[in-house]
Amino acid sequence: MSDKSSADIPSRRKFLGAAGLAGAGVALGARPLKAQDAPKPDPLITEVQDWNRYLGEGVAKRPYGMPSKFEKHVARRDVSWLTAVPESSVSFTPLHELDGIITPSGLCFERHHGGIAEINPADHRLMINGLVDRPLVFTMDDLRRMPRVNKIHFLECAANSGMEWRGAQLNGCQFTHGMIHNLMYTGVTLKTVLDEAGLKPNAKWLMLEGADASGMNRSLPIEKALDDCMLAFGMNGEALRPEQGYPLRAVIPGWEGNIWVKWLRRIEVGDMPWQTREETSKYTDLLANGRARWHTFVMDAKSVVTNPSPQAPLRHKGRNVLTGLAWSGRGTVKRVDVTLDGGRNWRTARIDGPVLEKSVVRFYVDFDWNGQELMIQSRAMDSTGYVQPTKDELRKVRGVNSIYHNNGIQTWLVRSTGEAENVEIG
Amino acid sequence: MSDKSSADIPSRRKFLGAAGLAGAGVALGARPLKAQDAPKPDPLITEVQDWNRYLGEGVAKRPYGMPSKFEKHVARRDVSWLTAVPESSVSFTPLHELDGIITPSGLCFERHHGGIAEINPADHRLMINGLVDRPLVFTMDDLRRMPRVNKIHFLECAANSGMEWRGAQLNGCQFTHGMIHNLMYTGVTLKTVLDEAGLKPNAKWLMLEGADASGMNRSLPIEKALDDCMLAFGMNGEALRPEQGYPLRAVIPGWEGNIWVKWLRRIEVGDMPWQTREETSKYTDLLANGRARWHTFVMDAKSVVTNPSPQAPLRHKGRNVLTGLAWSGRGTVKRVDVTLDGGRNWRTARIDGPVLEKSVVRFYVDFDWNGQELMIQSRAMDSTGYVQPTKDELRKVRGVNSIYHNNGIQTWLVRSTGEAENVEIG
Repeated sequence: MSDKSSADIPSRRKFLGAAGLAGAGVALGARPLKAQDAPKPDPLITEVQDWNRYLGEGVAKRPYGMPSKFEKHVARRDVSWLTAVPESSVSFTPLHELDGIITPSGLCFERHHGGIAEINPADHRLMINGLVDRPLVFTMDDLRRMPRVNKIHFLECAANSGMEWRGAQLNGCQFTHGMIHNLMYTGVTLKTVLDEAGLKPNAKWLMLEGADASGMNRSLPIEKALDDCMLAFGMNGEALRPEQGYPLRAVIPGWEGNIWVKWLRRIEVGDMPWQTREETSKYTDLLANGRARWHTFVMDAKSVVTNPSPQAPLRHKGRNVLTGLAWSGRGTVKRVDVTLDGGRNWRTARIDGPVLEKSVVRFYVDFDWNGQELMIQSRAMDSTGYVQPTKDELRKVRGVNSIYHNNGIQTWLVRSTGEAENVEIG
Repeated sequence: MSDKSSADIPSRRKFLGAAGLAGAGVALGARPLKAQDAPKPDPLITEVQDWNRYLGEGVAKRPYGMPSKFEKHVARRDVSWLTAVPESSVSFTPLHELDGIITPSGLCFERHHGGIAEINPADHRLMINGLVDRPLVFTMDDLRRMPRVNKIHFLECAANSGMEWRGAQLNGCQFTHGMIHNLMYTGVTLKTVLDEAGLKPNAKWLMLEGADASGMNRSLPIEKALDDCMLAFGMNGEALRPEQGYPLRAVIPGWEGNIWVKWLRRIEVGDMPWQTREETSKYTDLLANGRARWHTFVMDAKSVVTNPSPQAPLRHKGRNVLTGLAWSGRGTVKRVDVTLDGGRNWRTARIDGPVLEKSVVRFYVDFDWNGQELMIQSRAMDSTGYVQPTKDELRKVRGVNSIYHNNGIQTWLVRSTGEAENVEIG
């Protein structure tokens, strides 16, 4: 919309507007055009917006572009009101506003333990020490001169859907499932860097340490480190964003997000796990019997319907598109099934776009809605044969003390008004 | 860097800095760590930056994130000083600062003919008229309720590298090759929309028309329209950016950018091409004999080395990474060969990441540099067997009157200082 008010524009053509009239009830959605209807006044007539009557903004204004002002509602939502301080808090990806498999860099959820470290890459160093033949310090330039790879992977916070362990809590997939993003990373393999330092025979574990105020650190077994891990300096084509660990982060495909240490400054090589605060008191899963699971690294197969959902109700009867995301930390997503009636009938969703290892996939179900109540669920199956469980199946095994690793099936109830809410049906 | 000056910070640890000393001459790039060197003063010692001494910014500050302040130089460059007005002008993608195959949405080159139309999606309409059974008008909601697809494709302006027809002109791949971007699009197939309107038997061509001030329009043959074209409302996961045609644009994979009509408001179906201004006086190629090629839709196979290049000189001897992009409007890139010595020796580059139809691929050559002069070229081969020609081979066939469709091999001369420049060696 221009700054000019409609009063400033002398006349508005109505030939397109007239087209809005005749077939409003047609189930297809689009409306037949009948030019002879043009003179009749009707509330359905839409005035043609004469965007072509004035020049738009030129090229010089935005060296780095931003979304349209009409997309302001597409934003991360934070819960800094819930946490003691905003520096150790969370914001959520607006999954219900996105499509495809790439998360826009500006909309990736955040989880910081000591705020966003603000690092000048010219001064940043990565040290490798411990059980290595040659302790080394790398500048960012050093890393950029090593053989480079690009991979698309999801990162999910272990606490994603954590509030749901005790029942349906949060009304919107941004909040129930929004601690995930899926990016194309550019960097070097962790193996390349470790080979350069030379691992001692008793090297079994790494400790990854961040340069942020929390000194975030986690232990990583050497088998995983040498398998598919990366040290990334790029994401979605450009440099890492500050919130994602600029200028350097670990990429640990398929494993919980807190091990993907951001602002990575040191890798120590040892012969056993470090048992850091983050892997003893924090990122463990307390079972009903008082024992805790720990080193629960892998994010199991999971899925969520992003549309319709509480933040994205149905607005039209007739044909509609149901869509969502599915992922597995153990490989690729093989199949996604969707039910609209609370599990009585399931249909296999259409997966569209690349199906990659430890990356989200996008799925769709095209359906007709006549205004009936819907009970929507999705269920992912991965390349190992694992099937996403119900929340109750998870609770039977793990109790309800856990915060982490809830990959249970999510349910949205869609009312006859089209509004949706977070419910549970076992 | 924090707002705190270094004077505010009582002490700075130097254990990492000490590591910078010992092995500066090691060809590998990274430097061996020797703790016993720590006390010695040396200009190579880098002070440890104590980013972990203060909390960083919290989550609540940026609902939509932006790059680090240390990445301000990564920006589109415009030439509005060269064109009569900035509303009909160009800006260029900083290819030498990017990696992988996804162009960041904020850095996509721009070419507008009447500025960026500022369109409220709630008021936008797409009309289909002409040789159809049912003329239709679609709202954005109507389009979003039709079966959806996601595809990654390059868009190259026909004029990309156009200044180079008459010899090496522009010093940097951002300016010689920066009128290209590669995005994941979300939308509906053009075929879905045309099927809904119903094509008359004599429907042979479409005319795509934009809602911008230039009323940009081009003719599109029906075979291409029904093959792989899309109407996109999403890019890289979110809504189209205003510069890329928000809320709706045509996606015509492999064909010159001006046919990908932005701010798309109308598709007229006819039985012959419209011969619009843009396809008669403008986007044609004047040959030496005075005749002009027209309807030169396809962008032929092409490649460019983005690093090293005039804007990205070599800074270090020893190992280095050469990288670049290759693409073909006729299918996939099959192979990219690179020479460092002006064509005497060629080696096949490593293609990394997805190889997709009518998408750019990222290629790498890891090499050692001892300070010798380099004459760097890359040469793409596509899935049809077509090999990217030299500029002289193109000129022999097309003369030097053309502005468009220069897909000739680009040459960078790297001096012994590491600085690079745009040169020609035939």
